[in-house]
Amino acid sequence: MSDPIQRLVAELARLPGIGEKTATRLAFHLVRRPESQLRELAAALVDVVEKVRLCSVCMNLTERDPCALCEDPRRDPTLLCAVATPTELLAIERAGQFTGLYHVLHGVLSPLEGVGPEDLRIAELLRRLEPAPDRRRAEEVIVATSASVEGEATAMYLARLIKPLGVKVSRIASGIPVGGELEYSDQATIARALAGRSPL
Amino acid sequence: MSDPIQRLVAELARLPGIGEKTATRLAFHLVRRPESQLRELAAALVDVVEKVRLCSVCMNLTERDPCALCEDPRRDPTLLCAVATPTELLAIERAGQFTGLYHVLHGVLSPLEGVGPEDLRIAELLRRLEPAPDRRRAEEVIVATSASVEGEATAMYLARLIKPLGVKVSRIASGIPVGGELEYSDQATIARALAGRSPL
Repeated sequence: MSDPIQRLVAELARLPGIGEKTATRLAFHLVRRPESQLRELAAALVDVVEKVRLCSVCMNLTERDPCALCEDPRRDPTLLCAVATPTELLAIERAGQFTGLYHVLHGVLSPLEGVGPEDLRIAELLRRLEPAPDRRRAEEVIVATSASVEGEATAMYLARLIKPLGVKVSRIASGIPVGGELEYSDQATIARALAGRSPL
Repeated sequence: MSDPIQRLVAELARLPGIGEKTATRLAFHLVRRPESQLRELAAALVDVVEKVRLCSVCMNLTERDPCALCEDPRRDPTLLCAVATPTELLAIERAGQFTGLYHVLHGVLSPLEGVGPEDLRIAELLRRLEPAPDRRRAEEVIVATSASVEGEATAMYLARLIKPLGVKVSRIASGIPVGGELEYSDQATIARALAGRSPL
């Protein structure tokens, strides 16, 4: 293999879920594409490096600071949704139900992987919850982390810090997914669904 | 999603086997990586565009022309192996058994996909087989295309063109893969294995 191709394979193989074989396939595919396609991909990468940063308010990825979500006057500033990652924010936004603002934590607490509170954007979240004369403060923080051990632990941790500030903390529901079969749901999910039942 | 990320997702989604979802996951992964990793991937792409070309002898991808394989004095110029793609050349090279030279066709004949003889590097192969005073000519061409309908048709087509030049043409064996179970092999493979039997 020529050196530039080998280097491209090595770079592609650093991506998650892409091993040596897939990287080789991708590299040889790219070599066969018109020159413009490779240049466009390269330009898109450099563009991301140069233009994308964190919104200083909600910590989401953005091109301009504050981001479009934080600047949108139609969104409810009294409701904050804390998510682990920008992709999870996107998933909630796509559901089209949430009209408040977001806060991206950039991870969940995970002692096993060495992720502590200081590695997350928790200090920034608490700062947003401080009373300030120039803006309306959130009245409720919905912790929308995954229903995993780490997601739950992060939610508990945040609740302990936020409640003393006089701000409500809630957790998204966990249970049988829409369209999911009760029969094939795992025990933990069924237990959650039962515990989280609501009156009809 | 910010524009640069959206553009990166679109570019990544053009890669084979990478859909919208995987592209989004990759893009958000890349955004979180150190700036240097993105720049290195971008540089590797540009490098491939700028440095990799086809070897004018064997049509393999190379940085210098003729390529290292064609220039290697230890390789046997009387034996040519015709392969469909540079990746297949690599696969044969990795097996470490073949000591002749290669010729990359850059595809196989496929009327259904509109690939005809003029789309492949067949003219270049025939030119290599013409007698020339300054180099030794190949005495045998091994057609190492896949055991698919297109691979077989390409082999047949090449044989018809090459034999009249007084050059032997052979085909790699097709049969039960090493470590493969006869019990689970498909009928076509078993039929091939039987037809290609060799005396003990």
